Order: sequence, then structure tokens, then C-alpha cells
Amino acid sequence: MTGSNQYDISDVELSEIYSFAIQLAKNAGTILLDSLQQRRQDEFDDNDNDKNETQDSTNSTNVPEELIMEEKLNSVDIVTKTDNEVEEFIHSSIRQKYPLHAFVGEETYSRGSSKEYLVTDEQPTWIVDPLDGTVNFTHGFPMFCVSIALVLNQKPVVGVIYAPLLNQTFSACKGNGAWLNETTKLPLLGSRGVGPIPKNAPSKCIFSCEWGKDRRDTPDGNLHRKVDSFINMAAEVGGRGGKGGMVHGVRSLGSATMDLAYTAMGAFDVWWEGGCWEWDVAAGICLLEEAGGLVTTANPPPDDIDTATIEDARLGGRLYLAIRPAADTVGGETGRQGQERLVREVWRRVRRLDYSRPGA
Amino acid sequence: MTGSNQYDISDVELSEIYSFAIQLAKNAGTILLDSLQQRRQDEFDDNDNDKNETQDSTNSTNVPEELIMEEKLNSVDIVTKTDNEVEEFIHSSIRQKYPLHAFVGEETYSRGSSKEYLVTDEQPTWIVDPLDGTVNFTHGFPMFCVSIALVLNQKPVVGVIYAPLLNQTFSACKGNGAWLNETTKLPLLGSRGVGPIPKNAPSKCIFSCEWGKDRRDTPDGNLHRKVDSFINMAAEVGGRGGKGGMVHGVRSLGSATMDLAYTAMGAFDVWWEGGCWEWDVAAGICLLEEAGGLVTTANPPPDDIDTATIEDARLGGRLYLAIRPAADTVGGETGRQGQERLVREVWRRVRRLDYSRPGA
Repeated sequence: MTGSNQYDISDVELSEIYSFAIQLAKNAGTILLDSLQQRRQDEFDDNDNDKNETQDSTNSTNVPEELIMEEKLNSVDIVTKTDNEVEEFIHSSIRQKYPLHAFVGEETYSRGSSKEYLVTDEQPTWIVDPLDGTVNFTHGFPMFCVSIALVLNQKPVVGVIYAPLLNQTFSACKGNGAWLNETTKLPLLGSRGVGPIPKNAPSKCIFSCEWGKDRRDTPDGNLHRKVDSFINMAAEVGGRGGKGGMVHGVRSLGSATMDLAYTAMGAFDVWWEGGCWEWDVAAGICLLEEAGGLVTTANPPPDDIDTATIEDARLGGRLYLAIRPAADTVGGETGRQGQERLVREVWRRVRRLDYSRPGA
Repeated sequence: MTGSNQYDISDVELSEIYSFAIQLAKNAGTILLDSLQQRRQDEFDDNDNDKNETQDSTNSTNVPEELIMEEKLNSVDIVTKTDNEVEEFIHSSIRQKYPLHAFVGEETYSRGSSKEYLVTDEQPTWIVDPLDGTVNFTHGFPMFCVSIALVLNQKPVVGVIYAPLLNQTFSACKGNGAWLNETTKLPLLGSRGVGPIPKNAPSKCIFSCEWGKDRRDTPDGNLHRKVDSFINMAAEVGGRGGKGGMVHGVRSLGSATMDLAYTAMGAFDVWWEGGCWEWDVAAGICLLEEAGGLVTTANPPPDDIDTATIEDARLGGRLYLAIRPAADTVGGETGRQGQERLVREVWRRVRRLDYSRPGA
């Protein structure tokens, strides 16, 4: 204990928690894979049944339960039965092993009426997304994952992301670096390999962003603010009234957690997003920071972009700008200086997003 | 031979070609992986050297050759040494085994001055992209692949896509279906599992698209035509003057070939793109059609969207709209009718793109 509300956990205990979290994420991911496999099996069983029956067109309604649920719900914000099952599995495993720790999980939270930020400094808090990239999961697109983090005093100190269909485990524990599949240090090519932030960044950068769920067609709504920002980042240098960033590529995976993991890996140079929640980013922030990346707010300061202090993103702030790990340049710019330069270059090109929440 | 310029290949020969193409794609993918691994190894060697030397900041310039090349070239259209090596490996393997067949490869073609369409009906033609998703490859993002197709009389009859970092092989041979890793039939969830085209499509659909390389900020340029189309697909129903499509999600992977593979898999419902070339799509078109998907032109007809005949995409046409495999509905709409309905719904929301070429 370093203060009245400040928790401290010994290195040994943290190391135990880290191993527990990795195994837990893998077990949870296996449940996701089984569910996907079961849907495939149901399909084959249906086909077998068809062969033994006379033609009956009503048979076509015999689709797997997850897909029926999809029909019933909002066309973007799908919640599947699997989501809930996996969260309950993770929650009960944690409750059993660490009964004094707090727990914030996406499904439990979403069922509540409050949208307040619930992570306190009173006790270690597990922040869990049992299935990030739900739409991808329902479609069989491999960019979905389990995300498990432990937060101490508002800082994620353990982060594990497991993408079972990619067979990729991303993990980090404060002070011990970030890892792919537990054996390959991140960034993937090393900080030398990913190199410094390019001289004319965001040119030569891969820009990762998401269209999100707020699709209201109001001139000043988040959809148009986002798209304006995307176009500024993509357009030729000199275009868009000087804001053209001519990024190397624009990527949208449909999973904030995978976006962050790939930024930590060095595969993406910049990830910019508003609207996601703490369970989407807690593990990814730990991973990114341990890999040597930077994460701050998506929203540019109103007037002092060139000089504003670049502060760490607030976990519950719903606005994130992440920059990949970076090497120092020959000219003497440190990796951190290069990252801050890129933060300001992104801020110059993006609009402020409007995602508020009570209590944050 | 079924005509003066019409080639026919026996089923036995086609089956041999198919096996040859699968093995060739895997071997080529292994070269790509080795190259990625070598870059990681170079990094570690550099680090080791650093330990034995006095601090010397010029050492930071000792980056792998691929990354130096990246600095030298256009910031979007990277060509790496690996690209050329892999194409030469594939080309020489084919030349040895099938000396009478023609060959069109991305690297060879791009070095030529002509942009004409070179695939004739005179002989079987291999169409090869040694590395699709080059930018992803240079960044270590797993969405890159080898793409190998055999085209007879303008139709791809064999298509193999191998994504080595995902360890996914997509393959198809005319009349024999489409497969993931040679054992799992596509679409992944079966046509029953992926279901019919949703009633209010493009709502509930995953829409796959790419920002591409043409980033000119001219009001009627391809960038703005594309983005207008993306916004129409994404915006709420009723928005954008009635064009709002409220798709489930928008995805951009940075690889046309992987987009097509995931559409064949059923992971994406719609892929819409202009500007890519025959080596980007030849294998994917074979895969998609064998899985039960549909591929036509990206550009809507000028006036008769409701009634226009939906024709197969022209291989060299540079404009593609692909729809995933689909089951029949209970109400009696066939999978094909559902796909055509979705084609028209997409056409209503997208603008005509301007990618021309001589001879096509």
C-alpha cells in the first residue's frame, strides 16, 4: 500500500496474476471457437437431416440460435448468447481465484442502466471484454478476441488479448514488455525494425480507424466528424486545404482491441477512435505501453496543438489516439519525441468527437 | 478444343494443375514468411552488434533493405525486393512445368510501359500476384497473400490464395467447390449458416471496401466518389437523401485479394472496389464463384438499375462488386435472386468510378 487508496501488488503476485490471465483468456477463446465450430456442425446436421426428409421449405428457418438473435436485435449492436456465457465463465473464474478484486465486464455493464465510469482506486479491478468484434465473430471473420486486463490505481498493469481464430495471443505485464504468443517480443520487428516515426508522417503511416455505431446523418454528428478526419488523413499532401496526410493505407478491422494490439505490434502506426469503452481498450493500453507505444486522447486541444502537453489517455475517457513504438532517429529525435510529433500531426487533421459519459 | 481459339483442358489435367498451384502458392508463401523472419533476425543481429560496440548513433541507419527501399519509393505504391523474387520463383516453376502456358504477373507487368489487358484466348494463362497487400507485409500486418490463378477463355478455372501469416489457404477449381485449408468447404458456415441475403440489405451486411491509391483531392475524383459511396452505405436508414444503407460494419484490410477471399468465405457480405488489376482478383473470382458468390461490375448502369442484366465482371475491367454466397429464403427468393437484389441496392448507393485502361 503506497497510500490510503493506492493499491500495491508484489512482483510475485503480479506474475501469478499474469499467468492466470493468459490461461483464462485462452480458455475463454476456446469457448468462442467451440461456439463457431458448433454453428458449423449445426449446419452440417441440418444438411444431413435434409437428405432424409421430403422437401420442406420451412426447414430453411432452422438456423443457428445466434443468427436468429441477430435478426431480433439492433443491426449494429449485436449481443450473442456466447458473449454472456464467456463473460460469466471469466467472471466466475476470477471471483473464485481473487474474491476481493472488483470486476467490470462488458455484458454485465451493458445490462445495467448506468453508463457511469465504475473503476475506482479502492481495489484491483478486472476489466473484461469477453468478445470484442462481435459482428466479425457472427460472420466468421477472424478479427475477434477476448480481452482481459487488471487495473490498479487507474492503470492497466496486466493485459491479455487472445484472438482464437488467428491463434494470436498478445500479452503484457507492467515492467515486463509486450509479447506475441508469449515468445516473440513486440513490436514484431523490434523498435529498430519498425524504425523511427517517418519524417513526413502521417505520410508513410498505416492509419487504423473505425466507422463505429453512431451513424446519424447530421452535419455535425460523429459520423461526419469521423469521415472528415479520415479524408484529411488519406488525401494527397496539399489537398484538403493543406490537411491532406497521404497516409500509406487506411484500415478498419471492426475491433478496437485488435486495432490496439496491431498498433502495439507495429503493424499499424496510428489508431484514432472515439466511442469505445474501457473494456475495449484496457488490455490494449497495457500492451501498447509495454511495447513502447503512446496513447493519448483522440480530441485535439482547442487552440495549442503545437505546445499542448500530451497526457496519457484516461481509461474511461472514450477517446483514444495510439501511436506505435518507435526508434530514435539518427538526427537525435527520440522515439517519444517522434511519437509526440505524430500525435500533433494527427490532431491537426482530425475533428473533435462528441462521446460523453457521466462520471468520467 | 471446342473452337478455334477456345481451350479445353481435361478434368485430370485440371486436377493436376490445381494440386500444382496449391503447392506453388504454399512454397511462395514460405519465401514471404522467411523474408519477414529475416527482417526480425536482422534486427536481433543489429541489437547484438550494438552490445559489442561503443555507442554510435549512425548505427541507427542500419535498417533492413526492404525498409530502406520503402523510403525511396512512392509512399503508397511500394515494391519490395521480395515481390520480385517471389514472382520469379513462381514464373520459373510454371515455365518449367507448363512451358506452353502464358504468364501475367504483377511485377513483370508493372515494369512494362503498357497498361493494356494482355490475357488472350490463345492459350491457358497464369495470372499471379506474388504479394498482394504489400504495405501490410512491410508493416507485419497479417493481411497479405500470394495469389495464383489459371485462366481459360477469360474465365479463372483455378484459384489459390495463401496467406502465410494467417496460415490460411483458400483454393478453388472449377466444378469442385471452394475450400479453406483444403478441408473446410466455403462458405465457412455453409450456405445455410451464412443464410439468405438479409431482407433489408445492405442493412445487417458487412461492407468491405478500400481507400486505394488515388488520393487526389479533386471534387469529382475517385477518392471523393469512393468516400461518398462509403458514407451512403454506412449512414442511418433514411439519411443521405434516402441512400443511407446502415451496414453492419465497414471493413478495409488493404488487400483486394483477401477481401475477395473473405467474401467467398461469407465473412464479408459485400465487396466493392475499383482500380485493382486482374492479378488482384483472378484467383479470388474463381474462389467466390465456386463458393456460390456473385461478382459483377462496381459501376451502376446509368439509368436502369432495377432492370439491368447483372453480368459477370470482366477480368480486366478494374471494377468489381462481389456478393457472398447466399441461401434461398423461405419466401421463395433464390440465393441468386437475393444476391441480385443486393447488387441493385449497392448500385443505388454508390457512384461510378473512373478507372480506365487501354484494350479492355
